[in-house]
Amino acid sequence: MLDYKPNIVLADPDHEYRVVGTRPVRHDGPDKVLGRARYAADIHLPGMLHGKILRSPHAHARIRAIDPARALALPGVHAVVTGADFPDVSAEIKDQEEGATVNYGFYSRNVMAREKALYRGHAVAAIVADSPHLAEEALALIDVDYAVLPPVLTADSAMAPGAPLVHERLVTLANPALRSGGWAEGDAGDGSNVSNHFQFTLGDVAAGFAEADAIVEREYHTKAVHQGYIEPHSATARWNTDGTVTVWASSQGHFALRDHTSRILGISVGQLNVVPMEIGGGFGGKGQGGCYLEPVVAALARKVGRPVKIAMSRPEVFTGTGPTSGSHIKVKVGGTRDGRFTAAQATLVYEAGAFPGSPVPSGCRTMFAPYAVPNGFVEGYDVVTNVQKSAAYRAPGSPAASFAAEQAIDELCEKLGVDPLEFRLANASKEGSRQVAGPTFRRIGMVEILQATQEHPHLSAPVPEPSGPGKRTGRGIAAGAWFNGTGPASAVASVMPDGTVSLIEGSPDIGGSRAAMAMHIAEVLGLPAENIKPSIVDTDSIGYSSGAGGSGVTFKMGTAVYQAGEDVRRQLIERAARIWDVPVDDVEYQPDGTLAHKSDDALRLTFQQIARRLNGTGGPIVGRATANPGGVGNAFAINVADVEVDVETGKVDVLRFTAIQDCGKAIHPSYVEGQIQGGAVQGIGWALNEEYYFDDDGQMLNSSFLDYRMPTALDLPMIDTVIVEVANPGHPLGVRGVGEVSLVPPMAAIGNAIAKATGARLESLPMNPAAVLEALWQQ
Amino acid sequence: MLDYKPNIVLADPDHEYRVVGTRPVRHDGPDKVLGRARYAADIHLPGMLHGKILRSPHAHARIRAIDPARALALPGVHAVVTGADFPDVSAEIKDQEEGATVNYGFYSRNVMAREKALYRGHAVAAIVADSPHLAEEALALIDVDYAVLPPVLTADSAMAPGAPLVHERLVTLANPALRSGGWAEGDAGDGSNVSNHFQFTLGDVAAGFAEADAIVEREYHTKAVHQGYIEPHSATARWNTDGTVTVWASSQGHFALRDHTSRILGISVGQLNVVPMEIGGGFGGKGQGGCYLEPVVAALARKVGRPVKIAMSRPEVFTGTGPTSGSHIKVKVGGTRDGRFTAAQATLVYEAGAFPGSPVPSGCRTMFAPYAVPNGFVEGYDVVTNVQKSAAYRAPGSPAASFAAEQAIDELCEKLGVDPLEFRLANASKEGSRQVAGPTFRRIGMVEILQATQEHPHLSAPVPEPSGPGKRTGRGIAAGAWFNGTGPASAVASVMPDGTVSLIEGSPDIGGSRAAMAMHIAEVLGLPAENIKPSIVDTDSIGYSSGAGGSGVTFKMGTAVYQAGEDVRRQLIERAARIWDVPVDDVEYQPDGTLAHKSDDALRLTFQQIARRLNGTGGPIVGRATANPGGVGNAFAINVADVEVDVETGKVDVLRFTAIQDCGKAIHPSYVEGQIQGGAVQGIGWALNEEYYFDDDGQMLNSSFLDYRMPTALDLPMIDTVIVEVANPGHPLGVRGVGEVSLVPPMAAIGNAIAKATGARLESLPMNPAAVLEALWQQ
Repeated sequence: MLDYKPNIVLADPDHEYRVVGTRPVRHDGPDKVLGRARYAADIHLPGMLHGKILRSPHAHARIRAIDPARALALPGVHAVVTGADFPDVSAEIKDQEEGATVNYGFYSRNVMAREKALYRGHAVAAIVADSPHLAEEALALIDVDYAVLPPVLTADSAMAPGAPLVHERLVTLANPALRSGGWAEGDAGDGSNVSNHFQFTLGDVAAGFAEADAIVEREYHTKAVHQGYIEPHSATARWNTDGTVTVWASSQGHFALRDHTSRILGISVGQLNVVPMEIGGGFGGKGQGGCYLEPVVAALARKVGRPVKIAMSRPEVFTGTGPTSGSHIKVKVGGTRDGRFTAAQATLVYEAGAFPGSPVPSGCRTMFAPYAVPNGFVEGYDVVTNVQKSAAYRAPGSPAASFAAEQAIDELCEKLGVDPLEFRLANASKEGSRQVAGPTFRRIGMVEILQATQEHPHLSAPVPEPSGPGKRTGRGIAAGAWFNGTGPASAVASVMPDGTVSLIEGSPDIGGSRAAMAMHIAEVLGLPAENIKPSIVDTDSIGYSSGAGGSGVTFKMGTAVYQAGEDVRRQLIERAARIWDVPVDDVEYQPDGTLAHKSDDALRLTFQQIARRLNGTGGPIVGRATANPGGVGNAFAINVADVEVDVETGKVDVLRFTAIQDCGKAIHPSYVEGQIQGGAVQGIGWALNEEYYFDDDGQMLNSSFLDYRMPTALDLPMIDTVIVEVANPGHPLGVRGVGEVSLVPPMAAIGNAIAKATGARLESLPMNPAAVLEALWQQ
Repeated sequence: MLDYKPNIVLADPDHEYRVVGTRPVRHDGPDKVLGRARYAADIHLPGMLHGKILRSPHAHARIRAIDPARALALPGVHAVVTGADFPDVSAEIKDQEEGATVNYGFYSRNVMAREKALYRGHAVAAIVADSPHLAEEALALIDVDYAVLPPVLTADSAMAPGAPLVHERLVTLANPALRSGGWAEGDAGDGSNVSNHFQFTLGDVAAGFAEADAIVEREYHTKAVHQGYIEPHSATARWNTDGTVTVWASSQGHFALRDHTSRILGISVGQLNVVPMEIGGGFGGKGQGGCYLEPVVAALARKVGRPVKIAMSRPEVFTGTGPTSGSHIKVKVGGTRDGRFTAAQATLVYEAGAFPGSPVPSGCRTMFAPYAVPNGFVEGYDVVTNVQKSAAYRAPGSPAASFAAEQAIDELCEKLGVDPLEFRLANASKEGSRQVAGPTFRRIGMVEILQATQEHPHLSAPVPEPSGPGKRTGRGIAAGAWFNGTGPASAVASVMPDGTVSLIEGSPDIGGSRAAMAMHIAEVLGLPAENIKPSIVDTDSIGYSSGAGGSGVTFKMGTAVYQAGEDVRRQLIERAARIWDVPVDDVEYQPDGTLAHKSDDALRLTFQQIARRLNGTGGPIVGRATANPGGVGNAFAINVADVEVDVETGKVDVLRFTAIQDCGKAIHPSYVEGQIQGGAVQGIGWALNEEYYFDDDGQMLNSSFLDYRMPTALDLPMIDTVIVEVANPGHPLGVRGVGEVSLVPPMAAIGNAIAKATGARLESLPMNPAAVLEALWQQ
């Protein structure tokens, strides 16, 4: 165990903050630690019934008929819904109303199968009964007449000539921005399982490779892995008598749940109110693509006129929700002996699962983003297969791409005889660098994190000696990139009579964002963070707020909250001027929250003093702001991993792990460190153990936490973190966003370390004992 | 039954409204009609326990000791709280933080007795158990050692020399603005049961009476009556692990509940969040003075660490909450034969109940307010007695005062030989009139409602013939005044992507105010009222909002909502200018909600069109406003009642009843009519039947709806209403406030009608058969 001490490299040391950068206890902490926080499954309503989902036992089958008669005859069973209970939105290609492009023809069919069941676990009907046990029992009484079809389980088989078609009406797009798929107007599509194929080019790739002293060309494979959140999905709906619906659910974005659910039900968004409950982990899986149960409970509630709840079991979470994509990636990189990265080329094939929309565009965008490579070509294939529809998982698409690129670059460095860290620093992206598959960079911290890595004691320490015979040790490094996101955000702050401030906003808190938001407004108003009372409210009670995803919530909602604080501050200045009967310009707001006349020392009011005088001097003060800010700051990370490989068993132990990341300004360093550590741990699991293990019929064989092996504390070293703060000029406090890039480098760093330890290169994930042994034998 | 047709006299016919003045279905209607609305007692929380209150069996007793040991030994009983579980705020005289003056030394002792029990029904302990039945059973096991003291049950006995003192530490104040009582710093007070005595003088009363051709001098008595709301009080509290508390309750002001509860518990207001449930009637009784259970459930929840609910029974509502005051009023009025009202004088003695704070100041202010009487003297006595602490009831204090004044004026008119309606019109208050006990009037509608009364067919119709022998019929009229209120108000409006608007605010909806608020913002934005989704949210989710009381909610919250709509409109204009890339000044907001370029016809966006483009063009739009508006408009009402008296039985039937009221602009005429009709019905009940009937020991003998006789539909004629709209210049739409003045004239109108029918004057309420017979016999 390392002596853990957080190490913050201040790239922006000039500004003095009172609250930002401190580590107050998070507002939601005590209730969560002591078991009183209320999650989605904790809702109980008078007269509530319980639903269950009937899931397809076939990976690919036409649904000829569904007969619920036997189930409905069971006493205590109230109703059944199938695809026929939802409007058929087949004709609707996309919806850009909320700024996102969603093909509800596909989305609605993932919520409830219509013509075909497309994976084992696909919802084909739902039942509601007096108890969850009765509902589960009754599932077996719903008679579904399936015509079983041959499935395609991998992208390679789905792209093979003559492969069975997952969607007869699929149209192949050529646009990475249109991720949710094309749908033929008539009955016949393009006869392919490729839903999207697009390319990015920079410079002259052939010339770049011609210039190279060495070239490495490799192929990599990764498997689907699940986000592994602790809380299974749960949703409860009450259909009110005026035609409005209330849904209680946990998610990363209850406005997205509102948009998707209302669209799938065929009602207007204004009819639906979504109440956010605490979320027990999401990591992308409860984001934009994470709407599974909400339309179903709403449809059941409409049918029975009573509240209905459905809570998934763990196997349902594995087989009925979305893991990340499996992938097949070809990489070619070239460089010179003097350390120049001259050309990079890649083909990324991602398995979207049963409906279009893998994160292959993001994989393409981020794969070579850490480097200012002058010549590049990247192409992406989005391929549908008869497995679970993929969903987002922290920096979706980037970890697999980084696993490929960063191992190939390490091999290139070996061939060229250059130090891999020096090579990365010499070619690092910086402000003004053009990307192979993205816009020119603004201020970024890739150089700074490489410099911080060089200076870190981990790099100057020797690689640990093997702990015994048959053991080999090695050290690997890898980089990762993520572009971070933004979106609409709304915040309202009310000054309370006791000098506290109630803050409401609409983006769920998935990693301490209530604390971070409280700290934003506390900084603006000169108050302690404890004096802010932050809450996430329902979609009726706040303006549109996009979800907690894309590492964007602290950036976008922080911007809104900061501005809401400025709105409060401005009104307080006006109020003080009114109380004192002086011009507004004579009043200043001091950093500790005191209102003071600029020249008359007798005129002073602390925040607490003026707060209790508001009602009688013109009314309460409420600040508000909405935003959809540009100026997102890109995020980069470096991982350094020391591993020990047991060459007898193939088991890999991570001995030491250091994660260096440019976070922009870290609002609450403990939660930033937690994000980095969490990403590293998930990356170690993805690197060494995790995978969806299917049989030939598409049956997942390890759909429990016992069989789906995630790392525990016993499997892990302390994760040392280095926060590098290269302030993002696009945010008032310099925030970039920290939630995702930490998951990008671990697999490649560990792969590079295994190669250093053993000389064997592993080109597939997971690098479990069997895979390691096979690589050693092949060597 | 009359052919009912609402008759609106437009005093402000020039302005054209699109929404205001129409009659959309109220937003909360369907759920209430169909039984799905959730009231305070509908809360169920996991692990919730149930409390009950132990109430004093004595009207006046010292509490020597409370021993809960036997109760706590009962399996399933979890805890007991007594006054010792609350901080002793004896030393704290008043609290002006929220603009109100509250003596928590008294207030907290009404919530839970400390040294003495002061009325039968006074809470002396509370118990929490697994079920409400068990809690009730265990009440008998709490051993209280009382030293019984002689009670004082009426103001007259309380003011008698040597009367037992209700409060040894009471200090007699002389200020109508300090209603909640004075408390001696040491142990000894002024040795009186009079908690307040004050006077108002205008002109020269002696000269006024000297000038009079006739003088009438009378004394009147009224009894305590209850508001009679259908929903008994209920409250549930959860004490969270971070020291914050959540309380679910119904009230007329959940911010007031928050303020009172936090003060009585000794915590900061910011620690407490009050969630408003639907309210099943309040009429004042669930307003500022209506905090009974909330501190108790919170204290119990803190003790047991689980949620606790208490719901009152009907007898508890009668004996443990606050009816209006009983009163004893002396009146002297004088006038001339040419119809001039030369002088008015009155002494009002109101029974506050066990703690200071009757509405006698309001009785003084309103008693002669309908008239521009040049010489006046009014004095008020607030007297404590050993009965329930009085609470507000629609226009608190004014109905009893009006019962006295308007009968005396009618007698004066008889003596002078002038028409009582002509006399009232000749002396009516108008803009610029000085009041005996209030400020000079701004624009009011007293003259207009008298004119509307003169023109009403009821006045030109003959008094109905008696229906048989032994029956007598008569017609009476009476006027009433109320000053209406204001207070802090906060509103936030969010534009939804489908073109609807979500509106949140913080004043409870006790009479359709969600609909009225929706109509305010609909009018501003040019939308149908149905496109607004109004909700009342918890104290953490909105700025300070004062309660629904004082007829103020449409005035004050309407002002805030109107301004929040203007804030939305302004932002929409800015957004359209941004989308079109034109100067803001070139864009106009048309009355139907269309944004249009002033000169380029091609640039047009309907509200619905721009609503769905907000997120992508800068972010959502949220409007907010807070207010504590001045410019309240006074309210006046006239009632005309035809009655038939059965001289054999004393029973009085109301044959025809017309209520004429200046409402300012009526936002939703149906709900304004409903307010007027409800006030008339409650007034008829108060006039003819209702009273707290005590035995000599202070035991209420009629504490059920079976014995406490409220009028039913069978007892009532159709109440004809006339809305007169004299716009209030202090509100953007001309609103005055309509909720209370309707209860002021009925008792006097019926009393005057009985006198016309029989020649007998009834000088006490209720005018039930026994009282009528006695008056007839005395005649």
